[in-house]
Amino acid sequence: MRLLTVLYRSALLALLVAAPLFAQTPARDDAQALRELYSAALPSRAAYDNLAELVTKFPGRLSGSKKLEGAVLWGEAALKQAGADRTELQPAMVPHWERGAKESVQMITEIGPPGIALTAVALGGSVPTASTGLCASVVELHALDDLKSANVKGKIVFFNRAMNPDYVSTGRAYGEAGDARNKGAAEAAKFGAVGMLTRSLTLALDDVPHTGNTKYEDGVPRIPAAALSTLAANQLSIALKANPALQVEMKINSQWFPDAPSHNVIGEIKGAEFPEQVILVGGHLDSWDITPGAHDDGAGVVESIEVLRLLKAIGYQPRHTIRAVLFTSEENSGAGGKEYARVAGVKKESHLLAIETDNGGFQPVGFNLGNPAKDAHTRAARWQDLFAPYGIRVFTEGQGGSDVHPLLETLGYPVAGLSPDSQRYFDYHHTRIDTMDKVNPRELELGAAAMASLVYLVDQHGL
Amino acid sequence: MRLLTVLYRSALLALLVAAPLFAQTPARDDAQALRELYSAALPSRAAYDNLAELVTKFPGRLSGSKKLEGAVLWGEAALKQAGADRTELQPAMVPHWERGAKESVQMITEIGPPGIALTAVALGGSVPTASTGLCASVVELHALDDLKSANVKGKIVFFNRAMNPDYVSTGRAYGEAGDARNKGAAEAAKFGAVGMLTRSLTLALDDVPHTGNTKYEDGVPRIPAAALSTLAANQLSIALKANPALQVEMKINSQWFPDAPSHNVIGEIKGAEFPEQVILVGGHLDSWDITPGAHDDGAGVVESIEVLRLLKAIGYQPRHTIRAVLFTSEENSGAGGKEYARVAGVKKESHLLAIETDNGGFQPVGFNLGNPAKDAHTRAARWQDLFAPYGIRVFTEGQGGSDVHPLLETLGYPVAGLSPDSQRYFDYHHTRIDTMDKVNPRELELGAAAMASLVYLVDQHGL
Repeated sequence: MRLLTVLYRSALLALLVAAPLFAQTPARDDAQALRELYSAALPSRAAYDNLAELVTKFPGRLSGSKKLEGAVLWGEAALKQAGADRTELQPAMVPHWERGAKESVQMITEIGPPGIALTAVALGGSVPTASTGLCASVVELHALDDLKSANVKGKIVFFNRAMNPDYVSTGRAYGEAGDARNKGAAEAAKFGAVGMLTRSLTLALDDVPHTGNTKYEDGVPRIPAAALSTLAANQLSIALKANPALQVEMKINSQWFPDAPSHNVIGEIKGAEFPEQVILVGGHLDSWDITPGAHDDGAGVVESIEVLRLLKAIGYQPRHTIRAVLFTSEENSGAGGKEYARVAGVKKESHLLAIETDNGGFQPVGFNLGNPAKDAHTRAARWQDLFAPYGIRVFTEGQGGSDVHPLLETLGYPVAGLSPDSQRYFDYHHTRIDTMDKVNPRELELGAAAMASLVYLVDQHGL
Repeated sequence: MRLLTVLYRSALLALLVAAPLFAQTPARDDAQALRELYSAALPSRAAYDNLAELVTKFPGRLSGSKKLEGAVLWGEAALKQAGADRTELQPAMVPHWERGAKESVQMITEIGPPGIALTAVALGGSVPTASTGLCASVVELHALDDLKSANVKGKIVFFNRAMNPDYVSTGRAYGEAGDARNKGAAEAAKFGAVGMLTRSLTLALDDVPHTGNTKYEDGVPRIPAAALSTLAANQLSIALKANPALQVEMKINSQWFPDAPSHNVIGEIKGAEFPEQVILVGGHLDSWDITPGAHDDGAGVVESIEVLRLLKAIGYQPRHTIRAVLFTSEENSGAGGKEYARVAGVKKESHLLAIETDNGGFQPVGFNLGNPAKDAHTRAARWQDLFAPYGIRVFTEGQGGSDVHPLLETLGYPVAGLSPDSQRYFDYHHTRIDTMDKVNPRELELGAAAMASLVYLVDQHGL
């Protein structure tokens, strides 16, 4: 791209920012406030520097781990540093599962031993195999429903359903393909399977396996479960076509421990007019054990902290209490979000809006919003002309995210979720490559500024 | 992000895609055609695989280089492979400048020799220093205007103006700060300066220098010019504050050669009803000498080729001729775009629309459009409901891009430019790190599908 063209185009863009296409004139003060929030955010590296500290000091901060409890103390200090008037560690009991020594999956072939290794990770929550491993033949299936017409008794079920690349939203593809990871082990066990393998939930074709939660059912045998990288899944599929009797050996060394104490980390700026009414922003502090968790959800944590810093930076005195919450144990229980809502119910803490950010620190494009009347997204859309200059153009109906959802479900409070561009999220999600270098400092600050802007508007006008 | 929430949200998103907020019902056939184009694009790696070949075989394909002429032949073959009925190499003379042996910039301090190295690259087109180097004291300035009040005679001028991080559009910040790189050497020479250094045009803080064109003026001495990495610029600034008499040594080993023959590469699908009327998509084949040029503009090249493949893939027989053009010599002359427009004028080839892609292979968010009546962008915006499900929501007035602009300027034809998200582009632009791994295959295909969709709509309905 050459400079002169850019100069010309930029001048036009400047005009556009001043007067968006089809825009109505927004209230002057609101536009000014948003501009100030973005001007405090964009030149800053505060969120990025916080993220570097979080992921470097506390990678693999899974529920029950020392890393998570270190992150809790770090989070409280970061909230104070950002300008919180008051902080609090809210107790919550969380599950405690450990992967143990590195797992392995291999194909047993006539050229072995050893077999041919397939890159894999145990799914979170999986029971271990016998220490000598689990060896069985394999049945490749597409979806859970295929169990009904297959004979899987005594076998390892291999769900090889790829995420649908046809959807523009990668989250939609994740949601649709994800039932195998989530319920595949429990469902396959009902039909007599002894182990479960699943294709990693990503649109990337590479050798990086993606973990994630798997859920067992009471009264159903608990069978070991692991995810193969997409390349390994393709490889196993080819091998099975050549030799349907092929055996695979799984070794998983995981262990379950009693529930452990943990904490939601809360930091707030007291409201001047309605201190008892809360506007919440939050992300989750825990991550899977195998990842630094930069996008999931280190980004959400530091964006939420950054919202407090931005409001302070522009000298804004909120009317309602602005509260950042770093939830514990999102990945494998949701215990933090549920406990937060339970306590809010007991204390009768009114919430004007609870905004979650747990879809990565990418360029934000909008919000999803939900409330009992199902009009929260159309109500927020009245601010679309204020948001358009900052690339926030999409207001959809939704449920916010898994940590704020209980506030809607059990207490009827409005919730929202930040919607970043979704293309790259599942390249890194729940893997060892969800690292700092995948995060752009400006995209992170744009996310924080978008949430701070929504907080400001709700604080001024209500939702 | 947990699965159940995603599942729920995705279901809602699916509804939204079917019936966007505030949408009017679009014509059924158009919506279907766009869906087919995106379904041909998103699961494909065709554009990505083409890009891997282009940047791996032909990095540093600057005007006058053998790499560029290799890329010309590669481009013609790729267009045929994508389904072009007819290809053509359109001759154009291009400048031929070579960097020569690696340049250097160092601060001469009392602890040397050697001095302290500052990471730098010569600007494209810079004259060389004497082989023994150019050594002079340095005057740090902000903008070109500061020359009027500074004494720069016999000195090296150092323009240390950072791109403004406050703008959401990084292109706007680039345009504003870029005059020093573009004209700084010529302007400083008018005031007696003997060399010019400039801060790299990026919002990243790192040690990667960014090259780019610098222009001399007839009748004004031509002085050597180089760009410092942003870290090196900060370092020099600190050193100058401590010691204003500090000398810097520049060594540049560049050479100018006579203009060289090159080619625009043209591939087209003949129109069934109006073969003499053209709808054009294009990017530029050349890159700076120091870079693989994956985003600038390898992405634009393979997206343009992909437009032909997508139209073929859905079995679409266009009414007008659809032409992909891989322009030569955008970076340091614009000769390809100018020659294309000149020939189009001579041949009286009518162009319904010429779409350029030269802002990186990132997630596209819209188009800029320009025509003499200045209503092209509002006319295209009538398709906004068709585009919204694919994330294309911004239709601004603009000039397309530097290669298609001559078609508007000299012949009055409508032009457009694809607008990707701008946050990451200047992290890599004109550097050695503009590499394949910075490109996401889906974002690339989304760019191609967006252009193919606009081509389809203009082919069906006119602009």
